[in-house]
Amino acid sequence: MKSTRPLFRRSPKQWRMTRTRQVAAVGNVKLHEDDIVSTTGFRTKHLRLSLHDFAIIVPVLDKNRFVFIWNYRHPIQGWELELPAGLMDDGEGPETCARRELREETGYSARNWTNIGWLHTTPGISAQRAHVFLATGLRKGKARLEPYERMNTRIITVKKAYQLLHEGKLVHSSTVSALSLAEKALLRTPSVEKDSRGWHHRRHI
Amino acid sequence: MKSTRPLFRRSPKQWRMTRTRQVAAVGNVKLHEDDIVSTTGFRTKHLRLSLHDFAIIVPVLDKNRFVFIWNYRHPIQGWELELPAGLMDDGEGPETCARRELREETGYSARNWTNIGWLHTTPGISAQRAHVFLATGLRKGKARLEPYERMNTRIITVKKAYQLLHEGKLVHSSTVSALSLAEKALLRTPSVEKDSRGWHHRRHI
Repeated sequence: MKSTRPLFRRSPKQWRMTRTRQVAAVGNVKLHEDDIVSTTGFRTKHLRLSLHDFAIIVPVLDKNRFVFIWNYRHPIQGWELELPAGLMDDGEGPETCARRELREETGYSARNWTNIGWLHTTPGISAQRAHVFLATGLRKGKARLEPYERMNTRIITVKKAYQLLHEGKLVHSSTVSALSLAEKALLRTPSVEKDSRGWHHRRHI
Repeated sequence: MKSTRPLFRRSPKQWRMTRTRQVAAVGNVKLHEDDIVSTTGFRTKHLRLSLHDFAIIVPVLDKNRFVFIWNYRHPIQGWELELPAGLMDDGEGPETCARRELREETGYSARNWTNIGWLHTTPGISAQRAHVFLATGLRKGKARLEPYERMNTRIITVKKAYQLLHEGKLVHSSTVSALSLAEKALLRTPSVEKDSRGWHHRRHI
């Protein structure tokens, strides 16, 4: 069996941290200035931003459809089409977070959960990871948005979603990445719906 | 002709900023705490991180190969496989940045440049964008790394790169996104090599 380990290696280490200074701390976000020295003796400073990891979900509805959100974000002062996602609470595991966020943001809960990978969002400044989940067997419920959240659910066919992606119309990097990771998994995932003879249909993108 | 505008809208605005406070400023990175009020009168605070935009390049070499870098990053304390990329200098345009970074990080320069989209890296906290470029017609030169950069060029076939992507082995979100945006463009891009009869071959992924 082929290795499924991601292409990420801890060694050989290139930098050693000799000192770190917290420049700012607001809520769960912390900014550090690290003094680092390389294996060749070169010394420099490096910024490091501490952010919570998050979970991002590819929720597959019946009839080859995805559940997206049309999401307003203050930092970009606008709306973009995203997959449901949210930051992990302290001590919360990625899958627990994924289940909670899908329910809170869209109202849907899912029977089947598969972790299909993880990603570094901005490794030049932060070790934050996005944990990507495929969710199938969805059941509709009621969304419970936070008072600061402004988002609406959008149901989009699998075909249309990948079309938007390849046309460069999806601008949320984690959404694009998660859909790309899901592409192969979707081809392998039997539909949760069965036809009249009890056969599973495979999803085709 | 179909619209190629990305799915990103500035209106209707959901939040108005009533006050902003700079919490930290280190080099080009600034952290702000914004007081915001919603259209319904709800008041809250929102963190906003100011980061320079960056350019990320999909460099297509002859024989259906890509130029990647195996890059050590201090914040993640490890190596990952990435496409060449770099932050835009003050006043620098995305394409100028892309040309400079490809040359500095890999030594390659490219005859043909196509902007194939842009992405928000972490819209929950920052308006930073990644500008994605397809570069073809490559010519080898000498890399000029910054003293703090630790990276090595890796030549990888187009087929292998998309295989790694779909297997979840690429962990750099912007690299995964850029490759996804490039997928359709690559099918449209005639190879820069001609066969003996002068015909362009199309690249197949």
